[in-house]
Amino acid sequence: MTPFADRLAALVEERRSQICLGLDPDPANLRWAGPLEASGDSSAAAEQAAVAVARHCGALIEQAGPACVAVKPQLACFERLGAPGWKALADVCEMARAAGLLVVADCKRGDVPVTAAAYAQALVGETPTPWGPVAGLGVDAFTANPLLGRDALEPLIDAAETAGAGIFCLVRTSNPGAADVEDLPAPEAPLHERLAEIVDGFADRLQGATGLSGMGAVVGATEPGHIARLRELMPRAIFLIPGVGAQGGKPDSLGAAFGPGAASGLVPASRSIANDADPAAAAERLRATVWSSSAIA
Amino acid sequence: MTPFADRLAALVEERRSQICLGLDPDPANLRWAGPLEASGDSSAAAEQAAVAVARHCGALIEQAGPACVAVKPQLACFERLGAPGWKALADVCEMARAAGLLVVADCKRGDVPVTAAAYAQALVGETPTPWGPVAGLGVDAFTANPLLGRDALEPLIDAAETAGAGIFCLVRTSNPGAADVEDLPAPEAPLHERLAEIVDGFADRLQGATGLSGMGAVVGATEPGHIARLRELMPRAIFLIPGVGAQGGKPDSLGAAFGPGAASGLVPASRSIANDADPAAAAERLRATVWSSSAIA
Repeated sequence: MTPFADRLAALVEERRSQICLGLDPDPANLRWAGPLEASGDSSAAAEQAAVAVARHCGALIEQAGPACVAVKPQLACFERLGAPGWKALADVCEMARAAGLLVVADCKRGDVPVTAAAYAQALVGETPTPWGPVAGLGVDAFTANPLLGRDALEPLIDAAETAGAGIFCLVRTSNPGAADVEDLPAPEAPLHERLAEIVDGFADRLQGATGLSGMGAVVGATEPGHIARLRELMPRAIFLIPGVGAQGGKPDSLGAAFGPGAASGLVPASRSIANDADPAAAAERLRATVWSSSAIA
Repeated sequence: MTPFADRLAALVEERRSQICLGLDPDPANLRWAGPLEASGDSSAAAEQAAVAVARHCGALIEQAGPACVAVKPQLACFERLGAPGWKALADVCEMARAAGLLVVADCKRGDVPVTAAAYAQALVGETPTPWGPVAGLGVDAFTANPLLGRDALEPLIDAAETAGAGIFCLVRTSNPGAADVEDLPAPEAPLHERLAEIVDGFADRLQGATGLSGMGAVVGATEPGHIARLRELMPRAIFLIPGVGAQGGKPDSLGAAFGPGAASGLVPASRSIANDADPAAAAERLRATVWSSSAIA
């Protein structure tokens, strides 16, 4: 299987885009789902909502997809609809693949090794059962939480290596509260720099032919001052850079992320595309801005 | 709604137990599922496996449940079976409730505030939709990852407060790799002590009438030296203490956790019960050992 880093690099070059369409569907605000049928049956609410969520995401993929290289479904938004939500998630992954997009599952999983292996089966592997293997979501990459340390990341990396998948490890997230823990001195440098060292230590395992590694990192756009330093510490990692748009990050200030090349950063955007009257145009504007920013780097 | 801390305290007193039955079903090793029908249809594998997983968990609940106060389903083990797995998870939660047990969802979720709110809807709340609200799993407590800081915990705590639920925040996990990050000096004390301070800072929000707080902490049994210190830093938190049994933690060395009372610690056990020829007896032995240990504290 071609490593994620190489598949991404080829697509970035082809589409001249680093945009990742965030899919955070809120069943109370599905402006792209089409006409919604009424239902008095509350037990059917989850089924109805899940179908509408999938339609909404499908319409966004159709409109904004051509300006993007990936989609990033937020698993929380599907899980809250129970089993029908999980079915919708699988359907949305399939629609994205059919549109030529990579799928980055935003799930921020992290657990002790035996459990991490089970999460890896759910995301990029399969689960052996007496009735035959059960395929997981088959995503191209996923986000992971490194608080539990290296041994908890190992099963994820093993599975990603086998599947040709990538991992975006939380290093410095985009929310204000990130400062509470991720910026603590630990002791001679902030904790996020220590997390960056862990990520870089695994870079070989998921490296592609271009030199970029699918052992990636989540580095928020809301503190652009961190980006250059974290790029120094993780010269090969593909960055997933949330926080542009609604959270206040500026798409034209991300140049430092792109030092290793145009495919070394992915910029997710969700509300700023889905809530625009013209998602296709919103995605295209963002694509052009980020592409220019990456070209300067 | 009665706070989780009080509901737990009453049940601990009534059953003289702090044992939490871990449910980590492996479809390849479902010794309590009963006769397994063959199926040649690989698309049906997930459905078949999910039914068998639910039966296995139900049988364990029936046998080991009377010696326990809670179950702890590991969400990874259900997610890897897709939508049918999520349905099995909901069924298992229902079976546990019917057996008078509390449900602690082991999911280790943690995300930026808007997403944390969606996870809270999935776990202890409901999701508004045009077709009516969709109820979440309705668990009594869940595990959470604090790497993203205080603002990312807030929506979880808000939802727990409303639902009378509890949260077990990762502070010092039981795996060897925990030392890589959780034990880093940060700077004058290890990071896990800083996480403990964050947990304690929220104790008021989920405190019950007994003085214990449902703003709890995951504190591994594998490093008993940490337990006394973390109890000092979190005098009101209910501890969830994994790592007993298969991971090497000793059930009779947990006394320090129980300073604030018999209900101030929950001891999950999974493989050591499910893989015993007599789960009821294995659970009862563990119950008696931990109960004695707590009484000495």
